Order: sequence, then C-alpha cells, then structure tokens
Amino acid sequence: MSKLRCSITISLDGYVAGPNQSAANPLGEGARRLHEWVFPTRTFRAMIGGDGGETGVNDDVMREMFAHVGATVMGRNMFGPVRGPWGENPWRGWWGETPPYGHPVFVLTHHAREPLVMAGGTTFHFVTDGIASALEQARAAAGDRDVNLAGGARTVQQYLAAGFLDELELHVAPILLGGGERLLDRVADENVNLELVRTLAGPGVSHLKYRVRNPAKRAAD
Amino acid sequence: MSKLRCSITISLDGYVAGPNQSAANPLGEGARRLHEWVFPTRTFRAMIGGDGGETGVNDDVMREMFAHVGATVMGRNMFGPVRGPWGENPWRGWWGETPPYGHPVFVLTHHAREPLVMAGGTTFHFVTDGIASALEQARAAAGDRDVNLAGGARTVQQYLAAGFLDELELHVAPILLGGGERLLDRVADENVNLELVRTLAGPGVSHLKYRVRNPAKRAAD
Repeated sequence: MSKLRCSITISLDGYVAGPNQSAANPLGEGARRLHEWVFPTRTFRAMIGGDGGETGVNDDVMREMFAHVGATVMGRNMFGPVRGPWGENPWRGWWGETPPYGHPVFVLTHHAREPLVMAGGTTFHFVTDGIASALEQARAAAGDRDVNLAGGARTVQQYLAAGFLDELELHVAPILLGGGERLLDRVADENVNLELVRTLAGPGVSHLKYRVRNPAKRAAD
Repeated sequence: MSKLRCSITISLDGYVAGPNQSAANPLGEGARRLHEWVFPTRTFRAMIGGDGGETGVNDDVMREMFAHVGATVMGRNMFGPVRGPWGENPWRGWWGETPPYGHPVFVLTHHAREPLVMAGGTTFHFVTDGIASALEQARAAAGDRDVNLAGGARTVQQYLAAGFLDELELHVAPILLGGGERLLDRVADENVNLELVRTLAGPGVSHLKYRVRNPAKRAAD
C-alpha cells in the first residue's frame, strides 16, 4: 500500500509556526526563516517557474519530498485564511491560481463545499467527515503513489495519534522561535514509536527521517 | 579563551527529562531511553570501569564531549536530591563515591556549603552567588581547557539567555516524552543566534552541533 508521509520544517525548539499568526502573516513572527534552506534549491526554483539553483543535500531532500506523491492532505488553516485580506472570495486559498501541488489536495474542514479546480493539475477537495475519510479519498486518488501530509501541526498530531502516519521527516532549522505552534505537542509516546532511519546534513539545516511504528496498528497487522 | 560547551540529549519533542520527576526517579518517566545511545559506546564503558564497547560515530561524539574539558558547571538538581532516599546525608549527590567527572564541578545552589572532595579527582564546589561567578570559578579551574555545562534545562536556559554559552550540541533521541522538562523553553531568539556547524548520523540518534552567537556578546567584542 502507498505510504502516508509528512515532511515538515521545524525550529530547534519545535515550532512549525511562530507567535502571533494572522491572515496577513500565516506563518507567525520569525517563521519565514524556517524555510530559508528551501529557497535556493534547484527543485524549489523549478517549482516557481525559475531555473538554476543549488544542487546537493537540500535539493535532493526537496526532490524526494515531492517524488512519488499522488495526493496531499492538509488542515483547513493550511489551505487558506478563513477571512481573507484579498477581497470577497477567501476560498481560493493561500496558494495562488497555480498551486504547487499538481494533484488532488484534500482539505479537512467543517464546511462542505464543491471541489475547487485550479490551474496546473491541483484540485482542492473539502472533506467534512474526518481524517480517516480524507486519507481514504487521498489514497484512492494517489493510486500506487504516496500521500503527502502537508500540515499544519494539529493535523499532523491527529494523524500521528490515530496511527495513520508511516513516515515523518523533520527538517530542523537552527533557529529558536520561542512561541507559536509546536509540531509534537499532544502526541503521547505510548501511541507513537519512532525509528530513526536517516540523518542528513544539509547546509544550514538537519534532515531527520523517522519510520512511525504504531502499537495499535502493529497489533492489527 | 576556553569555551563553555553544553552537550545534552533531548527527545524529539525537546525534553531532557520526562514527566513526574522525583528523588527516586530524577530523569522522570520514560527518559532513561534518552541515553540508550550512550551505554554501548566504548567511551562510556571505560568511564564506568568496563572494557569493550562499540566504536563509531556515537563513540566519537562521546569521546569528544569529554575531551579538553577541565571543569563542569551544573544546577542544584543535577548534583543530587534535596531529600535523598539514601539515608541521612543527601549531600553526597547522585553520582556515587567516584563521580565520572574527574575534575572540579561547580554546583549552583542557594545554600553555602564546604567543597565536597570525592574519589577520582572530582570535587564539588557549591556556588551561591550566581551563574557568572560559577563560570568564572570554573574557567579559573579549567585553565586553557573548556568548561562543560552539564544541565539541567533551567541552568542551560540561564547561561544561554545571558550569552555565556559558546557551543550547544544536542543529541536528538527518536522518542517522544510528551511532558517533563523542555530544554529550549524560555529562550528568546533575539538573545540567541545559532549557527549549525555539524550534523552527524549515529545509530539511533542524531547529533546536531551549534555555535552560539549572542548579539549582546558580539557587540561587546
């Protein structure tokens, strides 16, 4: 079966978003620096329509992150602002008219809504009946490819606690945010066992990859 | 000048000690697993008077941690229990009659007390006039060697915030403790800038080393 993979950048003190998140600053204060390792890579530059960029460990990790992925699942706040600063229709999301996914994206929400077809192969589907249903739909869309769990923190926590996540890769940025949204809060160890499968040294960032072994899941195997 | 170095193992969710710490269980629940990478190494086995053990990345890191160190600073709770479960004199510390330091150790406390000379070259000095004084005394004792900041979390936070720490190495264990004492709480980024200098892949643990650049200190240079 295809895997559910999550690949996400955290600060050294464990945050995926800084303090004082808002519609105008969805990452919170100071958190743009989390992603500085991404911007110079050749893979990222190609994603935004540029050329050139750096190869090496960080680029390899970026390319791998998007390889063999057929669908994405994300939380409501990661899709877009509830009340957007951009006119009447906040329901176009944060991601512009050509989102970088290029495949079906399943958004967890409490509000039913028709699928939103964007340019470049991305269609947002709004799922109101929970994380298991969103994953099931994403797996069906992905076929034999993997499903990417994009975030945010609460969504990752829910999938971890439920035993659905197969692989977690954390890109640890050398910054301290001191507040905001922590990725690994509210996740009890008794429900989540991690096996370190890889540590990679990128310039300015450490890539730590874990296989997730869930006791409940193992018992059901 | 010699460096102040801190080398400490944390869980993936950032804890150096688990929940429900007590005199009988000073590391808290589940936290012994943090240090599992240490026990099989040749360096650790030699420290406890054994032979054999594994060489490789983890052993190299262990050896480096204790190399070129002439004195140690630690917090009160790391020295020993306030009320010990071991008879009338809790003031012998956690570390047995031959502590593994083999050099002067400066313990931050509010209670003045005569130095405690142990076997094997370790003498505990009790410092009541604050972190700067403890560091100054440790530097004097260490000569041209480095000073090791042993912990716990609150003590590391104080030295970080004050701009005294030169190097921080975190050994990230693939476990989630879900509660306890977090190393990097209460440390604002504006006071602490980190530069990633090394990421090493050990079996079962990731070693992340940072140079600490403190704006206040830089301004005073």
